[in-house]
Amino acid sequence: MRHSGGVTTPHAVGRPEITSPANSRVKWLVGLRKRRNRDQEHLAVVEGRDELVLALDAGVAVRQLYWCDALVQPPDRDSLLARVAGAHGAEVIALGDAAFRKASYRQTPDGWLAVVADPVSALADVQLPSDALVLVGESIEKPGNLGAMLRTADAAGVDAVVAATPLADWSNPNVVRASKGTVFAVPVASAPSTDVADWLEKNGVCIVVATPQASRLVTDADLTGPIAVVVGAEHAGVSSTLLARADVTVALPMFGRVNSLNVATSAAIVLYEAVRQRRKRPAM
Amino acid sequence: MRHSGGVTTPHAVGRPEITSPANSRVKWLVGLRKRRNRDQEHLAVVEGRDELVLALDAGVAVRQLYWCDALVQPPDRDSLLARVAGAHGAEVIALGDAAFRKASYRQTPDGWLAVVADPVSALADVQLPSDALVLVGESIEKPGNLGAMLRTADAAGVDAVVAATPLADWSNPNVVRASKGTVFAVPVASAPSTDVADWLEKNGVCIVVATPQASRLVTDADLTGPIAVVVGAEHAGVSSTLLARADVTVALPMFGRVNSLNVATSAAIVLYEAVRQRRKRPAM
Repeated sequence: MRHSGGVTTPHAVGRPEITSPANSRVKWLVGLRKRRNRDQEHLAVVEGRDELVLALDAGVAVRQLYWCDALVQPPDRDSLLARVAGAHGAEVIALGDAAFRKASYRQTPDGWLAVVADPVSALADVQLPSDALVLVGESIEKPGNLGAMLRTADAAGVDAVVAATPLADWSNPNVVRASKGTVFAVPVASAPSTDVADWLEKNGVCIVVATPQASRLVTDADLTGPIAVVVGAEHAGVSSTLLARADVTVALPMFGRVNSLNVATSAAIVLYEAVRQRRKRPAM
Repeated sequence: MRHSGGVTTPHAVGRPEITSPANSRVKWLVGLRKRRNRDQEHLAVVEGRDELVLALDAGVAVRQLYWCDALVQPPDRDSLLARVAGAHGAEVIALGDAAFRKASYRQTPDGWLAVVADPVSALADVQLPSDALVLVGESIEKPGNLGAMLRTADAAGVDAVVAATPLADWSNPNVVRASKGTVFAVPVASAPSTDVADWLEKNGVCIVVATPQASRLVTDADLTGPIAVVVGAEHAGVSSTLLARADVTVALPMFGRVNSLNVATSAAIVLYEAVRQRRKRPAM
């Protein structure tokens, strides 16, 4: 990135270094709302204290931490989070209220915003265990759904989440938000659907496609081996490309008037059925 | 309601009857965004063609149907939906573009908005079968979560959804929207948590509370009899009031960094585990 505002103090606490919403650094942050810009710089934006704590906890490389003393609740002049990020090599920049609100993606910002390394791995770099449980979302449109899928995948102990032929991207701040920061805890990748199928096959992972058209109920399918649960776009469902590569197709029992579940909800039900069949038990 | 704009044609198609956003009827519609006003008049607002079709299908009493020819896509000058609603006794009012946009709750309205009878039943009026499956959401804050819970409950064949000590209300347009109209298909009720517990006990329904603090996994609990699945508020979880009334508490296995699932996701996983144990199978 390039910016004209000189930022020299690494851990400045108290007096904001940038107060003008017209500051070039603030403009650059606003520019990161565009996927093209994030992709070009291989960056993602994390907003919110909880999400940031998770990102740090997951060992993500925080490049810059922006914070606003006036917005932090409860008042946190000690700024432990800023110090931790600073100690891990992040550039820490205090913004004034107006500048922070301009840079923020939220209607009610909590005073924390960070620019971090893009969390996406190349498919070939994702390591899978022998009993892999993978979640594939194909052409998911809504960032909120992609984020929700990640949050559930984290809880279910999924080994990797792959966006096949994605519409929403992992670095989208609304994905990061809906995922509650788990985008930095679970390995994530993106690739065209055909490449995803090739990768799964090469790794000996059984492709389980959830589709209302399947004649087998999910509870009648064997989900104990290495499997990838594949769910499709909000309206269109899974593409014919991935359907043709399915080892097994499964349906969820539907008793209602509305003939579909939300895509993230479907993914959650199938993943937890796999957890049940595997008799996976958390340390309690 | 009172309004000054004279609306005489019942099925007017084509030329809008109300064009000014300052029209008193439009103002009244905007006023229905306030829960207090909806409660006072025992009304709910349904926006969107799909939601409206579901509401009509469920036999809901549509009082007024507002539509805007210019916004309907694909163009639908035949206005079948308006005729159906009219035939069921709804007053049908054509709005101009500006007036409709003012009344609309959405950023991109699809040209359909209806005022209907409040869908809520009194707890005492809800009839339960002997193998009842009930969903209780306590103090759910986000309309989107309450709506998502309803959509899943409809799919899982739940007999009633009860909001205990609710924060979001059933008539909230965002609940209706997130529920995809299922708020009119599944019996819904609201009551203080104590009354809900009394009602469940009186009906011989076992209270199953989902809480991360439980030592029993949901898959180890018997969910085959008449049960109510109880999930709690987004942050606080289930109150001590309802916890004290629980017949059994269950936890979902958690393997991740984030120690919670979304409340609607948790409800979905527990409900579908109940469906599995009951060997309920849809007509396929």
